[in-house]
Amino acid sequence: MFRIALKVEYNGAPFAGWQRQADQPSVQGAIEDALAKLEKRQHTIAAAGRTDAGVHGRGQVAHCDMERDWEPFRLSEALNYHLKPAPVAIVDAARVPDDWHARFSAIERRYLFRILCRRAPCTMEAGQVWRVSHDLDVSAMHEAAQRLVGLHDFTTFRSVMCQSNSPVKTLDRLDVTHVETAAGPEIHFDVRARSFLHNQVRSFVGTLERVGAGAWSADDVTAALEARNRAACGPVSPPDGLYLMGAGYPDDPFEAGGLHR
Amino acid sequence: MFRIALKVEYNGAPFAGWQRQADQPSVQGAIEDALAKLEKRQHTIAAAGRTDAGVHGRGQVAHCDMERDWEPFRLSEALNYHLKPAPVAIVDAARVPDDWHARFSAIERRYLFRILCRRAPCTMEAGQVWRVSHDLDVSAMHEAAQRLVGLHDFTTFRSVMCQSNSPVKTLDRLDVTHVETAAGPEIHFDVRARSFLHNQVRSFVGTLERVGAGAWSADDVTAALEARNRAACGPVSPPDGLYLMGAGYPDDPFEAGGLHR
Repeated sequence: MFRIALKVEYNGAPFAGWQRQADQPSVQGAIEDALAKLEKRQHTIAAAGRTDAGVHGRGQVAHCDMERDWEPFRLSEALNYHLKPAPVAIVDAARVPDDWHARFSAIERRYLFRILCRRAPCTMEAGQVWRVSHDLDVSAMHEAAQRLVGLHDFTTFRSVMCQSNSPVKTLDRLDVTHVETAAGPEIHFDVRARSFLHNQVRSFVGTLERVGAGAWSADDVTAALEARNRAACGPVSPPDGLYLMGAGYPDDPFEAGGLHR
Repeated sequence: MFRIALKVEYNGAPFAGWQRQADQPSVQGAIEDALAKLEKRQHTIAAAGRTDAGVHGRGQVAHCDMERDWEPFRLSEALNYHLKPAPVAIVDAARVPDDWHARFSAIERRYLFRILCRRAPCTMEAGQVWRVSHDLDVSAMHEAAQRLVGLHDFTTFRSVMCQSNSPVKTLDRLDVTHVETAAGPEIHFDVRARSFLHNQVRSFVGTLERVGAGAWSADDVTAALEARNRAACGPVSPPDGLYLMGAGYPDDPFEAGGLHR
């Protein structure tokens, strides 16, 4: 078998999430069905991050095993042909060693969360941002976010459904910045860690939104973290503004440059 | 009657265009139907630009006449409530004099066109850009675009359906720039004039794409312009990447700052 790494972009809105499910559309299922058009059998692919329903992928990384020695670019073109009209695209592909694993070899996951601050409903950005109709204090949010960076027990910020063995993780980055867009002012969260707990980014964002609105202080965030209690978390944000931007590996299989160009 | 100017944002994908039509969904029709929920009668609104099917609005400007003296912000909120779930939003509103007219008072229209250069199909940007799967030479496109700026007979670049009295117009700006985005490299066209002919921007973009691909030279663009013949035009671009960004007026009714914040 020949193992190929795939960089995957998708609009999460119509899917029940990344993971294949019996009776609902999933991104994994869409790609596995496209693979079955190329080599007729049951395929099972692995991915760096199992995104929830409504969460988008910009740089999701997966791998598949093929019987034929596909040229990676030709495989991506064939998959994109069979993926239509689903909003899923293979934006890069590369041959990797048999022991390389999209999930287990990954040493970093990068997420972006977008909040759009305006009164009017979304049109072009519907499903792609979390719209908040009040002003938010970006500096206060960024300052409070730094209380979460580092090695912590993140029990407060994990879903009760989380299957991770340990709530102790190292958060490498949580930068909160203001970005002016055609739709209005956005707030972007750049969040990076080796691995994340279930709902961790959305729990961070929902809690920090309360800080931006003036309802919580940075000390309240520290107290919530130290409580190690899910009930101490702020509201969990909706999935709409969340994007898996990429995964990092000791040797980036895509570093030669992608198919974007 | 009280006249109110509306700044309108919309995703053009599900509409047959701005203009109300008997049996097809239109942006004008959606807004007029929402107005009829507030003051029960047939409403007729005017707009700065009558965008075609699939063309988007970021800063379309329209006006309506109301019997009640609506506070503009409250009117926009009520319209946005009744516009749901259509991807149309009133992003600003302002009281204007009775002789102010969204179309006839406008002295400038501003359009943006987005080309996304990549092999992979669009996911998040589907319907919002023109995807081109080959490289384009942005400097060559910008240089050739300058041949079109100024006062010209634009017969080559107008649809045969165009109802404008004269093909002679002044093009104030046609800047072509490279913009890096999460989806890949985009080419943006910033196009400004007092008024436009039917399909003029899409005729410019389709022709300049040929220049970027190396099939046409800047001199070919000059020759096409001077031919004053529709048959001399390059291919007309699809509508997907076109946005009416705004309209200019001697006194901007929205200058006090919009509802975005």
